[in-house]
Amino acid sequence: MMQVSPSKIGIPESTDHFQIRGEDGGARCGVMTTAHGQVVTPAFMPVATQGSVKGLTPRDLRGLGTQILLANTYHLTLRPGVDVIQDLGGLHRFMGWDGPILTDSGGYQVYSLAPLRKITDEGVLFRSHIDGQTVFFTPESVIQIQKALGVDIAMVLDECPPAGAPRNQVETATRRSLSWAVRSRALSDSSGTLVFGIVQGGTFTDLRRWHCRELVALDFPGYAVGGLSVGEERGVTLEVAAVTAEELPRDRPRYLMGVGYPEDLIRFVAMGYDLFDCVLPTRNARNGLLFTSNGRLNIRLARFQRDENPPDPLCSCYTCSNFSRAYLRHLSLAKEISAAILATTHNLYFYQRLMRDMQTAIIRHSFAPWAEATIARLEQECQP
Amino acid sequence: MMQVSPSKIGIPESTDHFQIRGEDGGARCGVMTTAHGQVVTPAFMPVATQGSVKGLTPRDLRGLGTQILLANTYHLTLRPGVDVIQDLGGLHRFMGWDGPILTDSGGYQVYSLAPLRKITDEGVLFRSHIDGQTVFFTPESVIQIQKALGVDIAMVLDECPPAGAPRNQVETATRRSLSWAVRSRALSDSSGTLVFGIVQGGTFTDLRRWHCRELVALDFPGYAVGGLSVGEERGVTLEVAAVTAEELPRDRPRYLMGVGYPEDLIRFVAMGYDLFDCVLPTRNARNGLLFTSNGRLNIRLARFQRDENPPDPLCSCYTCSNFSRAYLRHLSLAKEISAAILATTHNLYFYQRLMRDMQTAIIRHSFAPWAEATIARLEQECQP
Repeated sequence: MMQVSPSKIGIPESTDHFQIRGEDGGARCGVMTTAHGQVVTPAFMPVATQGSVKGLTPRDLRGLGTQILLANTYHLTLRPGVDVIQDLGGLHRFMGWDGPILTDSGGYQVYSLAPLRKITDEGVLFRSHIDGQTVFFTPESVIQIQKALGVDIAMVLDECPPAGAPRNQVETATRRSLSWAVRSRALSDSSGTLVFGIVQGGTFTDLRRWHCRELVALDFPGYAVGGLSVGEERGVTLEVAAVTAEELPRDRPRYLMGVGYPEDLIRFVAMGYDLFDCVLPTRNARNGLLFTSNGRLNIRLARFQRDENPPDPLCSCYTCSNFSRAYLRHLSLAKEISAAILATTHNLYFYQRLMRDMQTAIIRHSFAPWAEATIARLEQECQP
Repeated sequence: MMQVSPSKIGIPESTDHFQIRGEDGGARCGVMTTAHGQVVTPAFMPVATQGSVKGLTPRDLRGLGTQILLANTYHLTLRPGVDVIQDLGGLHRFMGWDGPILTDSGGYQVYSLAPLRKITDEGVLFRSHIDGQTVFFTPESVIQIQKALGVDIAMVLDECPPAGAPRNQVETATRRSLSWAVRSRALSDSSGTLVFGIVQGGTFTDLRRWHCRELVALDFPGYAVGGLSVGEERGVTLEVAAVTAEELPRDRPRYLMGVGYPEDLIRFVAMGYDLFDCVLPTRNARNGLLFTSNGRLNIRLARFQRDENPPDPLCSCYTCSNFSRAYLRHLSLAKEISAAILATTHNLYFYQRLMRDMQTAIIRHSFAPWAEATIARLEQECQP
């Protein structure tokens, strides 16, 4: 397993909003302080794209140990609209979640969802995928939107070239993302919203290093790494993530965007990443795929028809405490809403427990052996 | 409002499984005892057609004050199959619900869902709407199936002619339903499953009366009234329900199948009905229609875009305690699963509270004035 030494680039050991409580190899356990409370890291953020985690209420999410949620500026801007959420007291009150919220800037969604994009140095023009309305995002406007939503952590606007884009295209996008980051940084203030920079550079490690150094010079309160797990080979993802982590300051939270499988989260934590978000636990749950202590389990398989075991016999979530694989299989085949609810409950509990286990292993200085044993168990298909 | 005197036809005042605790006019508050616990009546049974109330877990249902659930023999026989549920310890264990369960016999579903029906005196042959497999239900087999599921209350197989069927067709169906009831009654025993008879007879009050008397002579532990609210005019539903209730013994629970709107439940309770099931609160919730203290509310209307009030300001359910109409409208338009969950939570809480309010009004002998005032409030569209 790759382990990365803490980088030492002359920035204070800790800041007001991020305190490191323990380190083990490259992995760190810290506490991030936001306007809506603290987050113990490594932390996983369930995805509430449209202001709701699909299948769960805020009460359910608290019960699973959720500390912080991710929502999407792009989606909320298009529907219901920032002014509506502002009128209703901000995003926290709107969605009934009083814990920390981080919003993605919308950059990634503009490139992956919206038709008719036109990118200039000024910003990005696109059509809403909902009603075709033309929208113009600038680095300044997306920060203003996120502040209007009242979120705890905002992301800068970035340009995400597609996987496999040629070097000159990636270089242009990375330079433009940097110039946008400069403009975004100027809008940082003590208003309660922390603005994180986003490292781009595709799979070109020299571009990644260069972009890191330039962003670090801007002194953001935290750094995200974007444009990974977008279609490149898995070995490349791991290599680029490792190289990038080395360049980021030790005393700031490091957020690896949009990943990943449980075993990969362990590898990324070993590199020194602190924050994650991913649709895998929630989207897979809706498709009948459950993450368990012994690997992944496709609950729809015929072999579970009469299986009275819980999805994960080592799990103590509500689903595993009360229901059999046979029942979950039935609900999934019958397309019952409860299939999504119970599977999402399990998968998110599983992710949250994994993060807590990592925090414990780091504090106890047993991360490397714990990680090796856990990855081995996770990287098999479930054999009940 | 029509109020019906308790019928006096020579049957004991109360039985082991049904005790009347209070009466007010025709309305009764009772306690029905089943193998999985007691049910205070009047009671509403949420519909768990395929072994799950769409959008809610058993934990959620308990939290709403649910006493008893309804599931469907037809659906569970076709998928996952009775033998599967039996292997997994019965329906209660399978679906994680330890309270009483009543199953419909499947008669109504065969006529409304299954293609290629052939009805003979022996039983009904039909094709599964899921996989086209041919299935033959007899009065005996559906009771055996329900006993195999381990339910607390089973329904006899009946024949339900469509609304508007001519008298001779309804008469034939009613006679056949009676002969099936005779065969079903012979299978009643002290196994823990109470078998209820079902009154048919369409909109012909003389057929209804005749069928009642014949069924009452068979001495079922409870009586259901079927074939109403299937398309006939609403005034006819109320008249036939009232006439039928008069013929049913006072000391047995009376179950009016498949109805209805909140204001109608009050009218039916006034006639002396004790048990109800209906998809209205759950299905309407999924379509954005909420029942409130001041009438129905279509949460998708534009006028709720910035409405910070809860769906029902007089309600203390989880949804009304935490979320605005504006948020629920957003979730519904965005087709989020949480829209269904939160609206179903409210609607079922609303129905359960209505039943408790009726129980209280009966015990306090204030049912008539309470009913008049409540129906007036419910029969308006919500004017926020």
